[in-house]
Amino acid sequence: MVDFTGRDIISCKDFTREEIVYILDKASSMEELVKKQGSTDLLKGKILATLFFEPSTRTRLSFEAAMLRMGGSVIGFSSIEGTSIMKGESFEDTIRTVDQYADVLVVRHPKPGSAKIAANVAESPVINAGDGPNEHPTQALLDLYTIRKEKGRIDDLDIALVGDLKHARTMHSLAYALSNFKVKLYLVSPPQLRMPSEVLDYLDKKKVEYVEVSNISEVISKVDVVYVVRVQKERFKSIEEYEKVKASYIIKPELLSKARKDMIILHPLPRTIELPVEVDKTPHAKYFGQVRNGVYVRMALLGLVLGRL
Amino acid sequence: MVDFTGRDIISCKDFTREEIVYILDKASSMEELVKKQGSTDLLKGKILATLFFEPSTRTRLSFEAAMLRMGGSVIGFSSIEGTSIMKGESFEDTIRTVDQYADVLVVRHPKPGSAKIAANVAESPVINAGDGPNEHPTQALLDLYTIRKEKGRIDDLDIALVGDLKHARTMHSLAYALSNFKVKLYLVSPPQLRMPSEVLDYLDKKKVEYVEVSNISEVISKVDVVYVVRVQKERFKSIEEYEKVKASYIIKPELLSKARKDMIILHPLPRTIELPVEVDKTPHAKYFGQVRNGVYVRMALLGLVLGRL
Amino acid sequence: MVDFTGRDIISCKDFTREEIVYILDKASSMEELVKKQGSTDLLKGKILATLFFEPSTRTRLSFEAAMLRMGGSVIGFSSIEGTSIMKGESFEDTIRTVDQYADVLVVRHPKPGSAKIAANVAESPVINAGDGPNEHPTQALLDLYTIRKEKGRIDDLDIALVGDLKHARTMHSLAYALSNFKVKLYLVSPPQLRMPSEVLDYLDKKKVEYVEVSNISEVISKVDVVYVVRVQKERFKSIEEYEKVKASYIIKPELLSKARKDMIILHPLPRTIELPVEVDKTPHAKYFGQVRNGVYVRMALLGLVLGRL
Repeated sequence: MVDFTGRDIISCKDFTREEIVYILDKASSMEELVKKQGSTDLLKGKILATLFFEPSTRTRLSFEAAMLRMGGSVIGFSSIEGTSIMKGESFEDTIRTVDQYADVLVVRHPKPGSAKIAANVAESPVINAGDGPNEHPTQALLDLYTIRKEKGRIDDLDIALVGDLKHARTMHSLAYALSNFKVKLYLVSPPQLRMPSEVLDYLDKKKVEYVEVSNISEVISKVDVVYVVRVQKERFKSIEEYEKVKASYIIKPELLSKARKDMIILHPLPRTIELPVEVDKTPHAKYFGQVRNGVYVRMALLGLVLGRL
Repeated sequence: MVDFTGRDIISCKDFTREEIVYILDKASSMEELVKKQGSTDLLKGKILATLFFEPSTRTRLSFEAAMLRMGGSVIGFSSIEGTSIMKGESFEDTIRTVDQYADVLVVRHPKPGSAKIAANVAESPVINAGDGPNEHPTQALLDLYTIRKEKGRIDDLDIALVGDLKHARTMHSLAYALSNFKVKLYLVSPPQLRMPSEVLDYLDKKKVEYVEVSNISEVISKVDVVYVVRVQKERFKSIEEYEKVKASYIIKPELLSKARKDMIILHPLPRTIELPVEVDKTPHAKYFGQVRNGVYVRMALLGLVLGRL
Repeated sequence: MVDFTGRDIISCKDFTREEIVYILDKASSMEELVKKQGSTDLLKGKILATLFFEPSTRTRLSFEAAMLRMGGSVIGFSSIEGTSIMKGESFEDTIRTVDQYADVLVVRHPKPGSAKIAANVAESPVINAGDGPNEHPTQALLDLYTIRKEKGRIDDLDIALVGDLKHARTMHSLAYALSNFKVKLYLVSPPQLRMPSEVLDYLDKKKVEYVEVSNISEVISKVDVVYVVRVQKERFKSIEEYEKVKASYIIKPELLSKARKDMIILHPLPRTIELPVEVDKTPHAKYFGQVRNGVYVRMALLGLVLGRL
């Protein structure tokens, strides 16, 4: 029996396949519920605290919308400006304090491992909303949800992960989560921005088939899913180095003629040049639906850790 | 039959007289309802997103209070600090994203026409909360509501619009809205800050009687309503030029002895020197009641575009 | 009969002993209620506005959590960035405006006396959440609540107030509040940071026994309660002067061996070096429970001033 009551959501490495499927099924019920009645009262009287030590409109608003659609309410801060952190308070003390006010904490922080530290000091369940370049597990769950919804399954899919695989936490969490399924991964990145060895070792251990390639055009015709993230200039030693490789990670509309008809494109957003707006009109584009799915997945997670689903 | 379900509120030029009266009547019911029971559950489960790309305490809090008194809830941001805009996301992408979270969007943005663009990309209804110097339609509706409430009618009134008519979007929206009624307008401004020709052309087309004058003292004895906005130093080529004219747009308490007994003074606030605090004690001052009326009007608008009134 | 309906909460000097006990009793009911059912609907439909002209995570989130657990909702701002204050609006106008939106106002402002001014212009009840170095009455009430809860009484206790007694508003409010009880106070501070004569005069008038001492080690063995606040470097003429005295106001773990077994340590938080984390594990540490008690006390106050308890 899967029971998430009181559980922290810190890393996708913590989930079994059974647990992931359980969460996705609950998210699916939440989607039906929202479509039928807009919202519920399942979390009435519960308070979510959003502690964003690093700003993020998307993730913060998504969690807030999820909590409100569940009938709960929200307190929190969206940047450290004006918080007690500025008065010299330790991260642990801030967590302990807000833990007294809320029933569940959502934490984003630039330092890898910070969500785990928060979970250790808080009595309430803690959900990791991004701990630096490390992980972003709720994003990975909504990615899986979108894949399953659009493709009908997660097993037996060929999936390309494209862009800066080194720094994109969403890619790390997604790789960990996908390792529970029978997928083939194409890891498409410049050599400087390869998936970290720590993640590759994990894939090896879990016997996930993967290939590292350096140009999206090599694999575009073979895959069911293309998952793209930004490749940022600042990650390169020189602007010349960046200019040399950047085109290999852009989903140019002309590339899509080679793709399978039912191939889907996902992106955690925000996007810049790697995903031109011309792609939006194609049937491959699923990234705004993906945004909406985030609310259903987070509704499920909030309901589960608070023991109300 | 007037039906606002799903409709965007972008410009006062989009309203017919019948529609304006319909909104004001609904706002009137909202006022009664708040006075009787404080709040309702009409928008329970609905989420309003406030997207303020430019800060505003007043308009943001007014919309939030309106949504909460309707039983709904609110997410959003109050400045672009820490939003994905800072990461290079386009305005359209931000709108599309938040559209996935909320049932209705309220947008303030410094660029004229931005609310219209938002309405084009969002599926949810969009309400313009100020698009640069262009329009601020909900302010105009609450102004009309206040006039009707205080004077018993809008037709057959003589109304002075005083101050920077060039840049004050609230003046443009108010002029457009008033053009549906039988009013006489006195447009009182320095020559540099006259009402834009685009607005004057519209008044001409709608056969609204108006006169341009340059000193409030010329018309103070003739009017039923004095609507004042700020004249900002920064709008003038030199501080000398500003100093020369500013006195002509200040509602000095001594001026009021020449006014009709039942003349009312409105101001969208915040005010600076153009409306001295001494005026607050006079029976002419209606601007704080005007602030409160804004909540009733926005309750009505939210209820209408969400199809719950 | 005690009735707080519509009353402003500005200074602890305004309370009688009977009123304080009444508030603490109501807070106690709120604690039971939260423990039993998490939240109530007593303030459903009511809106709290938090006006923080000076930032504060702790107090703001505590009030928000209190309002939400009472079933009410919250609007407001957490700093003056982006408010109309930046456009030159007066404090009084901002208060008058927000007063039109909300049913109760919580105000923090750097200027002593500002909460009183707000109370004078607002029709809704105003709660002082800190007016510069002057007072912070709700903090004092939650301090008393914690003392009564942990020690079973307030009378007949020996209480040390330790640190910067000159600038810490929470110390002033606490001293005023305690003056209604039979306590002995040890005022422990550097000579430069003594309790202001205004507060000492009040204690004299109310015949409260107190002693001024300059080192916590002198009194640690004699007291039931140690209440600590920060001693900030910036308050001293030179860093040398600060370094010379700072050790006298640090609750070093080794000090605690001399303390009574049931002595309790309180701190309004955030803390820096004056309260080492090693103390957290001792049975004396009550400051995180104190944070939680703040929610119960503020629930009681909100319920009382809104006439719903």
